[in-house]
Amino acid sequence: MNQPYVIIGGDAAGMSAASKIKRMQPKAEVIVFERGEHISYSACGMPYWIGGIVESDEELLVLTPEKARNKRGIDVRMHHEVTAIDRSRKQVSVHDLASSRRFVQPYGKLVIATGASAVKPPIPGMELPGVFTLRNLSDSQRIHAYIAQHAPQHAVIIGGGYIGIEMAEALIDRGLSVHVVEMLPQILPNFDAEIVADVAEHVTEKGVHLHTDSKVYSVEPCTSGGLLVTASEGTLNADLVLVAVGVRPNGELASAAGLRMGEKGAIWVDDHMRTDDEEIYAAGDCVEHYHLVLGKNSWIPLAPSANKGGRVAGANAAGGDMRFPGILGTLVVKVFDYTMSATGVTEGEVRDSGRFGAQGEDVGSVVISSLDRAGYWPGVEKMKVKLIYQKSSGRILGCQLAGKAGVNKRIDIVATAIAAGMTVDDLGMLDLSYAPPYSPVYDPVQVAANVAAKE
Amino acid sequence: MNQPYVIIGGDAAGMSAASKIKRMQPKAEVIVFERGEHISYSACGMPYWIGGIVESDEELLVLTPEKARNKRGIDVRMHHEVTAIDRSRKQVSVHDLASSRRFVQPYGKLVIATGASAVKPPIPGMELPGVFTLRNLSDSQRIHAYIAQHAPQHAVIIGGGYIGIEMAEALIDRGLSVHVVEMLPQILPNFDAEIVADVAEHVTEKGVHLHTDSKVYSVEPCTSGGLLVTASEGTLNADLVLVAVGVRPNGELASAAGLRMGEKGAIWVDDHMRTDDEEIYAAGDCVEHYHLVLGKNSWIPLAPSANKGGRVAGANAAGGDMRFPGILGTLVVKVFDYTMSATGVTEGEVRDSGRFGAQGEDVGSVVISSLDRAGYWPGVEKMKVKLIYQKSSGRILGCQLAGKAGVNKRIDIVATAIAAGMTVDDLGMLDLSYAPPYSPVYDPVQVAANVAAKE
Repeated sequence: MNQPYVIIGGDAAGMSAASKIKRMQPKAEVIVFERGEHISYSACGMPYWIGGIVESDEELLVLTPEKARNKRGIDVRMHHEVTAIDRSRKQVSVHDLASSRRFVQPYGKLVIATGASAVKPPIPGMELPGVFTLRNLSDSQRIHAYIAQHAPQHAVIIGGGYIGIEMAEALIDRGLSVHVVEMLPQILPNFDAEIVADVAEHVTEKGVHLHTDSKVYSVEPCTSGGLLVTASEGTLNADLVLVAVGVRPNGELASAAGLRMGEKGAIWVDDHMRTDDEEIYAAGDCVEHYHLVLGKNSWIPLAPSANKGGRVAGANAAGGDMRFPGILGTLVVKVFDYTMSATGVTEGEVRDSGRFGAQGEDVGSVVISSLDRAGYWPGVEKMKVKLIYQKSSGRILGCQLAGKAGVNKRIDIVATAIAAGMTVDDLGMLDLSYAPPYSPVYDPVQVAANVAAKE
Repeated sequence: MNQPYVIIGGDAAGMSAASKIKRMQPKAEVIVFERGEHISYSACGMPYWIGGIVESDEELLVLTPEKARNKRGIDVRMHHEVTAIDRSRKQVSVHDLASSRRFVQPYGKLVIATGASAVKPPIPGMELPGVFTLRNLSDSQRIHAYIAQHAPQHAVIIGGGYIGIEMAEALIDRGLSVHVVEMLPQILPNFDAEIVADVAEHVTEKGVHLHTDSKVYSVEPCTSGGLLVTASEGTLNADLVLVAVGVRPNGELASAAGLRMGEKGAIWVDDHMRTDDEEIYAAGDCVEHYHLVLGKNSWIPLAPSANKGGRVAGANAAGGDMRFPGILGTLVVKVFDYTMSATGVTEGEVRDSGRFGAQGEDVGSVVISSLDRAGYWPGVEKMKVKLIYQKSSGRILGCQLAGKAGVNKRIDIVATAIAAGMTVDDLGMLDLSYAPPYSPVYDPVQVAANVAAKE
């Protein structure tokens, strides 16, 4: 008798894998164990529900357990936590959190999609009421309810990455005063400093108080009520604290089972999303993916690779042959009226990598400013483009865009070019679309490429 | 003594060539002969000036002769028509239209950038007052002045290509009633019928009367004043007629000089924009470019290739080694609230080409509908994507998009993928940007690629 496919984790990667298996093998038994209360929700949409742009959290649910069962034939078990993987017996230990029952479940093939968790820094106060992290839908529901019940006025966000900044916007939209405390010299570390400068100014103009180079030491209850956040810069009063200092991969189960792990505690997989156990696949925020520019595995947890990687894991688990080519860490983020996007590596990251010269001496970069449309078009905006390339070959290594219009999807031109191994000359000569309402005759990314080609 | 660089034609291609030569050889003498009244203007912006979105025709001027002379050191001679090329003597015959003086001008290298002209169909009435073509800035000035002076109420546009449809919008914006008469079964022949259907309905809703499968036989003065347009469908009254049935390359000079010409009367060039005379280059709307999908030269006059081709011609004329890789005919066009874009080949075109099976039996296509952003984002719109690919290899051959939002620049992802020789599998696995305000987690072009990959 064939053992079922077992999937640990019911979010994007896990449900993508389960759905792909059922499409390929409609009669196969596919069991998904999800320890939480939701499957397949749009985590990226949570700040917009909290901020009020999205009306209901139900809109964020991509797939309910009922629909997964009834429409896709996937045996979804909610509130079921997998506590161990026994590779020799090919079975997992399961804890049904609702009934407290424990049992073992044999598997034919296993897919690990345990995701990532919010990091809580080792400082006092992280468990106080009013202190939150935002990682899953339940977190967002807690924050939403807290705002509704307590009407907080003053928020401190610890961490100025894209989640911190998206939440700064959401809380400003809800009428709170917002301070963001970031340990590094700049917010948004996925971008180089030149690209962040204008945006940081914009964020400040929108009312966010930015404190960079500032470390938080503690959060304490305030004698007068509320919370007191002590940072290297001084103290801040708050009645809502969001801890957004990053996430870490949920690799414990895999690690305890002796699977090969990557540098940052994420699961190692090959280009078929297979772990070093050929019966076990892994996908999503708990794995590291091959990075097309760095030429090695890298841990960058983002939704598109979770969805694609889950699909690939499912296809291969079900006996297919599907390749996951690798990632570029491509991302786009709304920052009030600005849009910022990036692909490939930042200049700082690639210089440090040692891959293009020990001190990064083979890394070149240009920053240009261009209009997003024809100069005479009403509402035309400026856009900044940073292009990072290998000096010796001209190969494109990364790109960052920031502007108030036209940024969206432009980054994907460069992502495609990098995936294809194109040089700055190639990018400059691409036959891209032009019409006055949409673009200058030389697209901004081509202007940057042409400047780079001359250097 | 070195003879000067001579350039025939001062629009995008000619001025790009001249500017590139001067950047590479600041001391070289570069003479541009332009027979018209303007150099380097945004032809693509003309409908928006006529329609009132752009306030002044001066905004459309990219470069004035004075600026070209004073800032770039280019010897621009306005109202100078080149009437013959003597290849054996390496000189051109020039007619100064202002003074009626005729002279010969020797050249070291020659760049032909004579552009294209509007086609006038061989029917009566094309020279009547109130009947216009729109090709150059002077044409648009005539139309603008005619509207200001005569306040026409009823326009008939002959030809439903993108110029015809852009002008339909412009004239609706100016308060005219507009009829568009198109000989073919559909408007916008750069797109396949499935993509045009919704847009044609939208254009009709905006008040444009579309007459497809309808041929115009004559334009006559009406006894009661105005003009009478007789078409296969019947007669239409008009006080403004725009003839927008297409353009033809200005290849006469090159042809008379015995240069190799392409099928459609455009000048043949190699991948260095060199004609079959090694002292003569050509660029812009008068040349055919290598088409990356069709695998042969093709005549598709568009601004981006004119600019890039001119630069390449200039670089090589000046002794450089710059390659023009080829075109995809990528374009984007605003049609009232819709944006339409395309790259590569249409299904109809590629089936007829014989390149992928005698009857096009190796050509596959999918049409999908996708949201442009996360489904819960306010203002989310549907978008149609058609993807055309080679069945046997999966190689992408073309793509068309239409929708009210998010279309812009998405086509360039596919243009880049086609230029790189990517398959539908490759496109589906690209690491593209995602955030709820900008895209679904699988980009619409990837949804189409994934559907194609399954077929």
